[in-house]
Amino acid sequence: MPARGQREFFAVRTLDEALSGFRPGRRTSTERIELESALGRVLVEGVAAPHALPGFARATVDGFAVRAADTYGASEGLPSYLELAGEVRMGRPPSVEVRPGTAAAIATGAPLPPGADAVLMVEHTQSAAPELLEVLRPVAPGDGMVRPDEDAAPGTELAASGRPLRAQDLGMLAAAGVTDVAVFARPHVTIVSTGDELVPPATPELEIGQVRDSTAVALAAMVREAGGRPRHAGIVPDDPDALTATLRGALDDSDVLVVSAGSSVGARDETAAAIASLGEPGIWCHGLAFRPGKPTLLADCGGVPVVGLPGNPRSALVVFRVVGAPLVRLVGGCTDPPPEPTARARLGRDLPSAAGRVDVVQARVRDGVATPLFGSSSLLSILTGADGYLVVPEAATGLAAGSDVEVTLYR
Amino acid sequence: MPARGQREFFAVRTLDEALSGFRPGRRTSTERIELESALGRVLVEGVAAPHALPGFARATVDGFAVRAADTYGASEGLPSYLELAGEVRMGRPPSVEVRPGTAAAIATGAPLPPGADAVLMVEHTQSAAPELLEVLRPVAPGDGMVRPDEDAAPGTELAASGRPLRAQDLGMLAAAGVTDVAVFARPHVTIVSTGDELVPPATPELEIGQVRDSTAVALAAMVREAGGRPRHAGIVPDDPDALTATLRGALDDSDVLVVSAGSSVGARDETAAAIASLGEPGIWCHGLAFRPGKPTLLADCGGVPVVGLPGNPRSALVVFRVVGAPLVRLVGGCTDPPPEPTARARLGRDLPSAAGRVDVVQARVRDGVATPLFGSSSLLSILTGADGYLVVPEAATGLAAGSDVEVTLYR
Repeated sequence: MPARGQREFFAVRTLDEALSGFRPGRRTSTERIELESALGRVLVEGVAAPHALPGFARATVDGFAVRAADTYGASEGLPSYLELAGEVRMGRPPSVEVRPGTAAAIATGAPLPPGADAVLMVEHTQSAAPELLEVLRPVAPGDGMVRPDEDAAPGTELAASGRPLRAQDLGMLAAAGVTDVAVFARPHVTIVSTGDELVPPATPELEIGQVRDSTAVALAAMVREAGGRPRHAGIVPDDPDALTATLRGALDDSDVLVVSAGSSVGARDETAAAIASLGEPGIWCHGLAFRPGKPTLLADCGGVPVVGLPGNPRSALVVFRVVGAPLVRLVGGCTDPPPEPTARARLGRDLPSAAGRVDVVQARVRDGVATPLFGSSSLLSILTGADGYLVVPEAATGLAAGSDVEVTLYR
Repeated sequence: MPARGQREFFAVRTLDEALSGFRPGRRTSTERIELESALGRVLVEGVAAPHALPGFARATVDGFAVRAADTYGASEGLPSYLELAGEVRMGRPPSVEVRPGTAAAIATGAPLPPGADAVLMVEHTQSAAPELLEVLRPVAPGDGMVRPDEDAAPGTELAASGRPLRAQDLGMLAAAGVTDVAVFARPHVTIVSTGDELVPPATPELEIGQVRDSTAVALAAMVREAGGRPRHAGIVPDDPDALTATLRGALDDSDVLVVSAGSSVGARDETAAAIASLGEPGIWCHGLAFRPGKPTLLADCGGVPVVGLPGNPRSALVVFRVVGAPLVRLVGGCTDPPPEPTARARLGRDLPSAAGRVDVVQARVRDGVATPLFGSSSLLSILTGADGYLVVPEAATGLAAGSDVEVTLYR
């Protein structure tokens, strides 16, 4: 085994390298679910229109179905006259035909009767006599209507795979009669907390030195946001054998495995050794060159992506958001993740940074001003007080107050 | 009853008026739920820290707990020397005391032992002899540690009401031992579809004139996104008595009632009459001065907010997103809704608009260019093809190609 310094030199990656380079091939199994439950789920493959939509020519205005040629030249000064042949009922095949010189009353949404090729808006007509329509403006073929395949021709992709289904995608599928869909199963994500100091959140009184496990519940929430199903494997003491046993036990029924790696250097080394023992090809990187991501481990152990998070709660949550959540999405088939909310803002104060390292800085945003929040990476209050975070790029040695920055906002 | 034109003149509001002026006082009941299920839920009131967090002074680096004064003046050229008094164990009350001239080994996260007021990083020390530490740099009191109340003083608000709980908020509450929270119940939102042309999505074959009800499933999805519990009351024909009966039946166990109003002028008038009959104070506006929101009804019927949507599926979904979803959030206690993702883009082509009317225009966004999508408001494909929408303000008579626009992105 190489010396510590050398190992880290070889195995530290940038954030961009991790996001583009660590792309495990694992995908969850697929399942058929009802359309009503499919919001945010990812289709296994795009769904094509089984038939044309809306399927018939349809009025888009209230008025009269006509032959457009019968209206040519009509004006308020010199109207055309059409005989009213009847009315089209909503939701039924038309029982009336529009022959030359005739028109049929039609409401928005009703099917065009045979013979008609346009719908004249009611505002551009007058009633000349009970059965006689005065046409005050001409229409062109196709006016006031949609074609039978204007919403979708047969075979058109109605909804794409690779990204979460949105409300309108469900609507489109329903319109085509698709009431169940094949989607990727939600990834099972096992969360393992490690640390002799950790006790369950329900612990009413703490001894000096004890800390409630705040990370697991927050990670579980982020797993849900990323479309996964979180499972907490419990709190494991800082003991290599216990940790290895817990990780091995979780590996088989996990699509992603997440370990909070302990906050001391010793605990991190133990976690790295435990992860390395889980399977090939093993550890992909021992650290990420961004603050607070440095102690992040990424591994592929026998086909299961494993994320070793920094031990400090705040660092763990930041790293999971920028590196872990995209992995959960990917394993769940989401190759095209939905956009995050952002805000452009002026930086409220100078922001020092070291060149050659990306900094993820928490910020409060008020009235277009982003105020960076500083403090120990053990403090959760920095995260709860933040509206979002900004990324100070590697090349910058810092940003001056007044700089224009983009803040990724928490929802 | 005033003439149609007059009534509309009095009862049409702008989008801004609706968002700021139609603020029903209804709130859902409250319920206690487990913290693990509280992502996105809204606290009834802010939760205060029951005790200081972390509760004890804690090391934030790996190194040695010291009395800072013992290190003053230390340098690589002229080190100070401290006697190693022992080691602090993680997760337990310290059994060692740091007296003047001594130090105790400590790992990140462990509690400071009595007597110590700083932690010296291991990198700034050398081992001079088995029990003797060489100090190469001075530290100030408070260095390398957090205070017992640095994450939260007792009584500090850990998480605020009025906005959805985020992952880090759950973490902070867990850290404080809060494992259940009082939240607003999810609003029950009843969706009523009306139209003689509508058939259930599961209908395998359509007659000419029939349309599958695509709006209900898409509205239900948006209700869920806004934190509500959707319920579909089914499809009601264009019959005033049937509609009134369905609405009355739904009113009692709904926190918000949503009606697709039918796409013809006649159907809209019937819907308005049915809503007006439900209770006082009744209809707040008969229309919204934006496209495609013109036929939108907003009402408060005996304390239940009622939204009458345009009949065209696409218009209905756009209106519900901009007007209905915020109402669902509000009734669920969310007065400070989370941010939506947006993108700044250049407009890819001229966008005509009528002055005095706000236009909500669907757009595809690629490589920083927003391409507006046009077509009949009956077409769902315009919505599924869009990445988001842009709002052309009332004052503008249109926007020229190349204009800088902000697109609200769909997730």
